[in-house]
Amino acid sequence: MAGKKVLIVYAHQEPRSFNGSLKKVAVDELGAQGCTVTVSDLYAMNFEPRATRNDITGAVSNPKFFNYGMEAYEAFKKGALTSDIIDEQKKVLEADLVIFQFPLYWFSMPAILKGWMDRVLCQGFAFDIPGFYDAGFLKNKLALLSLTTGGTAEMYMKTGVSGDYRYFLWPLQHGALHFCGFKVLAPQISFAPEMASEEERKAMVASWAQRLKTIWEEEPIDCTPPWYFGQ
Amino acid sequence: MAGKKVLIVYAHQEPRSFNGSLKKVAVDELGAQGCTVTVSDLYAMNFEPRATRNDITGAVSNPKFFNYGMEAYEAFKKGALTSDIIDEQKKVLEADLVIFQFPLYWFSMPAILKGWMDRVLCQGFAFDIPGFYDAGFLKNKLALLSLTTGGTAEMYMKTGVSGDYRYFLWPLQHGALHFCGFKVLAPQISFAPEMASEEERKAMVASWAQRLKTIWEEEPIDCTPPWYFGQ
Repeated sequence: MAGKKVLIVYAHQEPRSFNGSLKKVAVDELGAQGCTVTVSDLYAMNFEPRATRNDITGAVSNPKFFNYGMEAYEAFKKGALTSDIIDEQKKVLEADLVIFQFPLYWFSMPAILKGWMDRVLCQGFAFDIPGFYDAGFLKNKLALLSLTTGGTAEMYMKTGVSGDYRYFLWPLQHGALHFCGFKVLAPQISFAPEMASEEERKAMVASWAQRLKTIWEEEPIDCTPPWYFGQ
Repeated sequence: MAGKKVLIVYAHQEPRSFNGSLKKVAVDELGAQGCTVTVSDLYAMNFEPRATRNDITGAVSNPKFFNYGMEAYEAFKKGALTSDIIDEQKKVLEADLVIFQFPLYWFSMPAILKGWMDRVLCQGFAFDIPGFYDAGFLKNKLALLSLTTGGTAEMYMKTGVSGDYRYFLWPLQHGALHFCGFKVLAPQISFAPEMASEEERKAMVASWAQRLKTIWEEEPIDCTPPWYFGQ
């Protein structure tokens, strides 16, 4: 939709990868709609994943005992976080929709992307205590996980060896995105592209591009417990 | 137990933290039993979390298209992974029990520790295809998650805002540890130490130390779907 702003947080090392193709068609399709699209290409940026003292410029609040969460909160309020974090926060603030594009590593995000979550979505910026879940600060924004798996769709069924794929979505969609207030759109899961034929991969990419044509008409999904696991 | 070898993979920035205390009493108690205890203090090591081309020394198999999983597998087989990964793999190989000590970040591991999982537990070392879940290569080893939470135990009940804590354990215990063959011991969850009194924190630390006295008598838990969520 024209005028909408999209941030794609992208975590793959190889531009020619299937993840790279999914990212590219999203940039193309959303751009063709007249959206402003920004991509944070984490590996290309050599994005820092570790949550450390270095994330605070200048003096910390308590030099005797380093509590990362507290120091990041205080630094956020003073505008004293490092520029890489502040830059990402600006991109998130501007965005109507944040798409996370990544291969599933150990039922979760690759560490470089986990580090983006850990460092960018800090207290004061994304949430406060209180001010989380439905009261999270990013509640006027949409988020969407577009991920690829090594395992097949069959493995990720309730009776499969890896269990229902919705089980691994829980920490990401509820614990992180919903906690910050995001309205979460249905995930885009591209199962086992490495086991697919070239034709099948093209079809999965085309399916994503097609979905994006009507992405702004979609309703958020329900991440709230305990019904989530009742399905 | 005398003669047993334990690796503690520890991810906290502050030695005087509650996590630091849990790590310290584990070192003390297991050492007193006559175990050999090794600690990988990830922040102190500035452990690299990103899975990149730099993890392979020398030539990659496919210079035109970088596939991290495949290249790490090939490098593992040739002994061509970087020394930081090889060092960690040696520690894991020697260990009878691997304890992960960390604060929960977004229902999961801090990125620095996620990066340890991503880079150390590579194909060829921890598993192969086939050769995963019960056939994972680390099947003669025990693993245990000792984690702390920001949220309270009440929040992490099935009817609480964060859902049953076992839901967030799933990707870690089943998707990662069980996948590699580890027999998983019950997690040690210290809820909300920051909200506890000094006495309550001391009691939680003492409880962990006490548990470790009989850790070698414990039976692994069942991480297998779908019964895991039936309880």
